[in-house]
Amino acid sequence: MKINKYEDISQIEKEAKKDYIDRHSAFIHCEDTAKAGEKFKVKVKIGDEYKHPDDFDHYIQWVQLWDRENMLAQTTFSAGAQGNEPANVEVDFYIVPKKNAKLIAQAFCTKHGLWQSDEKVLTIE
Amino acid sequence: MKINKYEDISQIEKEAKKDYIDRHSAFIHCEDTAKAGEKFKVKVKIGDEYKHPDDFDHYIQWVQLWDRENMLAQTTFSAGAQGNEPANVEVDFYIVPKKNAKLIAQAFCTKHGLWQSDEKVLTIE
Amino acid sequence: MKINKYEDISQIEKEAKKDYIDRHSAFIHCEDTAKAGEKFKVKVKIGDEYKHPDDFDHYIQWVQLWDRENMLAQTTFSAGAQGNEPANVEVDFYIVPKKNAKLIAQAFCTKHGLWQSDEKVLTIE
Amino acid sequence: MKINKYEDISQIEKEAKKDYIDRHSAFIHCEDTAKAGEKFKVKVKIGDEYKHPDDFDHYIQWVQLWDRENMLAQTTFSAGAQGNEPANVEVDFYIVPKKNAKLIAQAFCTKHGLWQSDEKVLTIE
Repeated sequence: MKINKYEDISQIEKEAKKDYIDRHSAFIHCEDTAKAGEKFKVKVKIGDEYKHPDDFDHYIQWVQLWDRENMLAQTTFSAGAQGNEPANVEVDFYIVPKKNAKLIAQAFCTKHGLWQSDEKVLTIE
Repeated sequence: MKINKYEDISQIEKEAKKDYIDRHSAFIHCEDTAKAGEKFKVKVKIGDEYKHPDDFDHYIQWVQLWDRENMLAQTTFSAGAQGNEPANVEVDFYIVPKKNAKLIAQAFCTKHGLWQSDEKVLTIE
Repeated sequence: MKINKYEDISQIEKEAKKDYIDRHSAFIHCEDTAKAGEKFKVKVKIGDEYKHPDDFDHYIQWVQLWDRENMLAQTTFSAGAQGNEPANVEVDFYIVPKKNAKLIAQAFCTKHGLWQSDEKVLTIE
Repeated sequence: MKINKYEDISQIEKEAKKDYIDRHSAFIHCEDTAKAGEKFKVKVKIGDEYKHPDDFDHYIQWVQLWDRENMLAQTTFSAGAQGNEPANVEVDFYIVPKKNAKLIAQAFCTKHGLWQSDEKVLTIE
């Protein structure tokens, strides 16, 4: 099964391809460091410069947050939760890390399959 | 199947019962009004004054956000995502409302079943 | 939040209402008795005499199996898994009961909300 | 993120490794051919000769069924649904294929991550 990986769209020429790659890519937004045992916010957002449709037959159905091989949480969306308009699907997870983590997010598009973020290294101070 | 509903713990005398009710209750935190077609943040947090265990055999497994009869999103957590310490499980959903909504959150505890928040009326300006 | 409960459609006169009730109702199909500690099959099927659409904007999104207050399993379907034609959505769960159980199934329709089965008493021989 | 793939355990010498690989592997059990537009049963079973623990801190949390890049269904289990004894976690999905499919199953173990089945080619008669 193909897992689509993040690509730097500044290196991509064709507008349609930039859009396709960017709007499906999962991005992890969080601090670089955390305190052991304290609540820590991890935003996962799909797309950066481009938005993804929220059509009934074409939408971002779920997002997962992993620390290496360990899945921490999964959010499943219903089609229409973004008002049936193009959007950057977004969810804030709150985790309590106890040691360094390597965060990865995955997103599933009902038409274009599975997309995996870059790894985000989280260091415990 | 029993659905536990929110109770105002200031009206409850026994400390153990206050704790039990509060730590399982789902609370919706969001603005009272939204703009039609704009992204809107809805925080769901389990417990207010008391924390819930994050033990492998006793944790908050999932949280759902509903608008009346329509489920918008569900987040499933793995045991240990809160560091295996008592916590207020929390997730921020982002939705795009187009009309007035009546938001309800539900949370499932693996030992004490299903808990439903009060209804939060969301008005489109 | 409204939870629709099973109604005996033989007591309902109007054809459209029979169809509406039946095609959303969750039915548990399993033996009445099980052996403690042995694998036990529980089929959950949505609808009996009438089928439910599998349209992108109108389908059975998930089914849950509960034993009293304890959720055992949840299956989430993608729209189109039934070929986009009306169907009786169906899933077989396999559980290992250790004591008597009271099974309940719930099904979520993306247009018509939550539907709950009758309780099925499972007796350990 | 590592995805563990099926290995033929008859080619593995060490008993502990045979057990580790087999008990995590997702196997698809279904006919080789289906009729277009008819309901078709796909069993996904984890492990063949060896069983996997169903401990609170170590269990098979979910199983997904895919057709190429398209997820058809996901079943999430609660720890204890297998009676807290070693078991071959199992679920029967019912899908309605309209054209040839390439089925893949994935299983997630809360201690040992993601495991992917071999691809099962399904031919429409």
